Amino acid sequence: MSSSKTLRKLQVVSPVPADIDIANSVEPFHISEIAKELNLSSNHYDLYGKYKAKVLLSVLDELQGSGDGYYVVVGGITPTPLGEGKSTTTVGLCQALGAFLDKKVVTCLRQPSQGPTFGIKGGAAGGGYSQVIPMDEFNLHLTGDIHAITAANNLLAAAIDTRIFHEATQSDKGLLNRLCPPNKEGKRSFANIMFRRLKMLGISKNNPDDLTPEEVKKFVRLDINPDSITWRRVMDVNDRFLRKITIGQGPEEKGMVRETGFDISVASEIMAVLALTTSLSDMRERLGKMVIGNSKAGDPIIADDLGVGGALTVLMKDAIDPTLMQTLEGTPVLVHAGPFANIAHGNSSIVADKIALKLVGPGGFVVTEAGFGADIGTEKFMNIKCRYSGLTPQCAVIVATIRALKMHGGGPEVVAGKPLDHAYLSENVTLVEAGCVNLARHISNTKAYGVNVVVAVNMFSTDTEAELNAVRNAALTAGAFDAVVCTHHAHGGKGAVDLGIAVQRACENVTQPLRFLYPLDISIKDKIDAIARSYGASGVELLDSFAEKQIEMYTRQGFSSLPICMAKTQYSFSHIPSEKGAPVGFVLPVRDVRASIGAGFIYPLVGTMSTMPGLPTRPCFFEIDVDTTTGRVLGLS
Amino acid sequence: MSSSKTLRKLQVVSPVPADIDIANSVEPFHISEIAKELNLSSNHYDLYGKYKAKVLLSVLDELQGSGDGYYVVVGGITPTPLGEGKSTTTVGLCQALGAFLDKKVVTCLRQPSQGPTFGIKGGAAGGGYSQVIPMDEFNLHLTGDIHAITAANNLLAAAIDTRIFHEATQSDKGLLNRLCPPNKEGKRSFANIMFRRLKMLGISKNNPDDLTPEEVKKFVRLDINPDSITWRRVMDVNDRFLRKITIGQGPEEKGMVRETGFDISVASEIMAVLALTTSLSDMRERLGKMVIGNSKAGDPIIADDLGVGGALTVLMKDAIDPTLMQTLEGTPVLVHAGPFANIAHGNSSIVADKIALKLVGPGGFVVTEAGFGADIGTEKFMNIKCRYSGLTPQCAVIVATIRALKMHGGGPEVVAGKPLDHAYLSENVTLVEAGCVNLARHISNTKAYGVNVVVAVNMFSTDTEAELNAVRNAALTAGAFDAVVCTHHAHGGKGAVDLGIAVQRACENVTQPLRFLYPLDISIKDKIDAIARSYGASGVELLDSFAEKQIEMYTRQGFSSLPICMAKTQYSFSHIPSEKGAPVGFVLPVRDVRASIGAGFIYPLVGTMSTMPGLPTRPCFFEIDVDTTTGRVLGLS
Repeated sequence: MSSSKTLRKLQVVSPVPADIDIANSVEPFHISEIAKELNLSSNHYDLYGKYKAKVLLSVLDELQGSGDGYYVVVGGITPTPLGEGKSTTTVGLCQALGAFLDKKVVTCLRQPSQGPTFGIKGGAAGGGYSQVIPMDEFNLHLTGDIHAITAANNLLAAAIDTRIFHEATQSDKGLLNRLCPPNKEGKRSFANIMFRRLKMLGISKNNPDDLTPEEVKKFVRLDINPDSITWRRVMDVNDRFLRKITIGQGPEEKGMVRETGFDISVASEIMAVLALTTSLSDMRERLGKMVIGNSKAGDPIIADDLGVGGALTVLMKDAIDPTLMQTLEGTPVLVHAGPFANIAHGNSSIVADKIALKLVGPGGFVVTEAGFGADIGTEKFMNIKCRYSGLTPQCAVIVATIRALKMHGGGPEVVAGKPLDHAYLSENVTLVEAGCVNLARHISNTKAYGVNVVVAVNMFSTDTEAELNAVRNAALTAGAFDAVVCTHHAHGGKGAVDLGIAVQRACENVTQPLRFLYPLDISIKDKIDAIARSYGASGVELLDSFAEKQIEMYTRQGFSSLPICMAKTQYSFSHIPSEKGAPVGFVLPVRDVRASIGAGFIYPLVGTMSTMPGLPTRPCFFEIDVDTTTGRVLGLS
Repeated sequence: MSSSKTLRKLQVVSPVPADIDIANSVEPFHISEIAKELNLSSNHYDLYGKYKAKVLLSVLDELQGSGDGYYVVVGGITPTPLGEGKSTTTVGLCQALGAFLDKKVVTCLRQPSQGPTFGIKGGAAGGGYSQVIPMDEFNLHLTGDIHAITAANNLLAAAIDTRIFHEATQSDKGLLNRLCPPNKEGKRSFANIMFRRLKMLGISKNNPDDLTPEEVKKFVRLDINPDSITWRRVMDVNDRFLRKITIGQGPEEKGMVRETGFDISVASEIMAVLALTTSLSDMRERLGKMVIGNSKAGDPIIADDLGVGGALTVLMKDAIDPTLMQTLEGTPVLVHAGPFANIAHGNSSIVADKIALKLVGPGGFVVTEAGFGADIGTEKFMNIKCRYSGLTPQCAVIVATIRALKMHGGGPEVVAGKPLDHAYLSENVTLVEAGCVNLARHISNTKAYGVNVVVAVNMFSTDTEAELNAVRNAALTAGAFDAVVCTHHAHGGKGAVDLGIAVQRACENVTQPLRFLYPLDISIKDKIDAIARSYGASGVELLDSFAEKQIEMYTRQGFSSLPICMAKTQYSFSHIPSEKGAPVGFVLPVRDVRASIGAGFIYPLVGTMSTMPGLPTRPCFFEIDVDTTTGRVLGLS
């Protein structure tokens, strides 16, 4: 047992009770005690109730001189639709490191979207004896970051349509009069934010009255092409009827109708900005330069052109601080940002990882999870997140299950909500061995970044010794530093002690520098090609001239040096979800290329990505209620 | 000076600086110090940062046996579009009572909508030397209550459309199979929440398999009439293009398009529920019985029919706790709920007032503001809020300005953003005297509830002694207990000491019991009539057969005993904003009658009410930014 004062010995029960029952069986420590163990003084965090605190970014300034801990990323093999327990393994590994191996450790997790909590998916706090608590606070509202994103995203959306409306109904002079109204002395002036647009236009005048009529026109008319608008509204609710809507049908809007739609809030570019930003001033700049569409002349229009970049930053100024929580065994967790893993990069925030690395210090561990399979999550972690953060991971964990490996070896389809086929419930070493081609490719891809790869086999009660040995052998053959069976779901940190030891050894024995998959200064097409080849593709096909034109446009607009964020299914290395194992030789079709300029990446679409989930006939919410005498949440899963 | 340890002596500067500059010139006390002065122990509140705390409802149980303080409501005369300083007077009065008259005092304020903060209006934290601080935290996010309302409101909206979708595409049996899926043993069961609907249908079976085909149909088919749906989506953003929209245009939604729209979040019925609820269990019931529309047979469909009442309560469970803040002079403030003053009742929450009354105890003061003019705000405070709370006010303050009285006396139109006419800037006793008819009617209407009325003249630098005396005389003649000139905007609490003394005397000298304007057991029409007559109307006209039919429907559905919440302009006693003074003999036209069944009132529409504001050509947000070195918010007004 560790020397820390906030560790909690779990009383493990078998069979494993429901997640909510385990979570409720434990009284969390006051979060100030968790903070104290991290040597955070009270001026470095703000409490949000008893079990959550926002850690202030200012702590980075104070710890600037101190060293970083080891940096571990958790990815997974290509999953079944049931998921292979990446979050649970991330939490379990940290419980092992902190509560059994006496290490300083911080778990860095994404904040889950609230919408799916009421739909099919349920919560995202881990599972069994490896969870973040309190589970209801983790899954709902948290400290309001996603709500802030929703507010900021939609303020920008309202600013776009209102600006088009006002430009359509006013003369150049009228617009200038309203944009730069005279003060009591009759003098006009530019708002500070307007100098950003003036500078971009090459106008260096300080007095609105000095503008030539031509300059007035350029300044006041953003002349947004409505068909080019990529900025959509968002809501943190599974509301499929908002996927495609027509707005502006009120009589006061004078027939300025337009088709658009809502995404779920975590799909907002502002979420990606939050995840990739490195400081408040960096966030201010990223929010201001988000591109919402083009002018009719084809120039990008940014949030600062609309005068709203500062207001967006004000709405987001508290969201930039990560939220401190705890695991079931009392180790610290930083929850921060949860960008989509397809149209965005699916990793928690850079600032949380940076703070965590300083807090654990040399010899300590920061374990962060990357969304989706390693082909997507870990790849983006390396090529996008680490590129922007400048941080270097030492170890990548790849989570595998016997179930998923059997599927890759040719087992029957796994469908959520339907009973598992017999093949998955009884020993079948042949299927497992065949499926290890998927694991092997993830290992070699990940190893290529220069990190040591540790395979974590998340064990189920139906797994056999022979099956587990097969995975271990295959992993070592494929170049893994180690491969370990773990039972953290059933046993908490105790079940991941071997994994913790392997991760520690992996971190201590790095021999290579971090290498990216592609340099930034090659063409967009070449970067897409490099990533496609890591999937096993022989090349990339731009499906129609539209994708080609988009690449040309972004290149012309000066955005070609951004990293690439592939929007591809997580259910196969290829673009076809049913192609399991390690497909080769296919041509990856790209049907569209889009960009999140503020966040800082180009995202090619391989297939159709849903950015707004729906509700089933019987959503989770039927079970969710409050015990009105205790105030306790019921039915969350 | 009071004996309290958290009082702050203001260094008053003349002329009065900008609100944000005054707010920023003061370092707030840590909110735990404010809580301590109220004898709140740390288990009675949760910190949200350093300057905000949620006071837990459990404090009511503990203080059940102790007595209440005096209860003071602040209303106003019929205002100009510039507002007459009701919030500022509310805060100033409390600063006087707490910091100069040594009284225990709590100010109860509404949480402002975030949308308008970025539009035209700016913030709502009071003004000058009578403000709630920190002003940016008061105006933005606060502790997330409005975000919770947005989430809950929109979850219900998504549940409605999705349910219609699933009912349209599935058989009765298919729906039952999905609503009550078999468990691993193949046994079906009802979710707890389903028993609410079963009970309403008169079905007392416990096993889904025991339902007759007829019962299955009744149970699984809500058969919602899409044209009857009154539940709209909400967003806390001024987004005029969402006022009227068409949803469901995605191909997956199979052509199930529908016209609907968004309101601003504070217009959600859930906000009204929050403001009127008295406990967690009461909120659970109110949220569950919110009517979203009718079945095709004309029966009301409620949130619990959709299975979502419990989930809504879970989303709102922290929002039920009021937020503690402080004034510039260090007196405590509870901020909680901010329902629209037209389609809802425009008063802060019952639970905040209840907690405050216990915290100040006998001899202490709770001052709460009622939105709009007293004809609407104070009327609804008495007949809706006090009716549900069972609380009895002793004193009603009516805020008046020389400016507004001159307008009522026949002065030229006052338009926001345009310079004031000379009549308002120089002495004109005749105009003031003529305008006092408006004040007089507000006084006699308010007095009729059995409270003592104190008139607070919010003084401007251009007001003259003769004008102020005219108001004082008119107020006393009209039956006011007292009438006092105050300068709290320029001087803080010191400028409202006379008002504080008058309010104290008024509270100590109540001679009558609380009397409502109408009983609940008369017809809807008669209740509307009673309120209309208090406006000076000779009667009510239902504009078309639709309003009449709505009244019939609500009566048939069993909702006729609810109180009435008039949706009328605040700019006149009548329905015509330009009719100033005290109009009489008009017939009040009602064009529609709607209901918020969960919140608990019927609301007749007198004229058109906008429930979604827009943004001007140059919204406030152009000025708003963050100083990225200090983290301080700039440009909020």
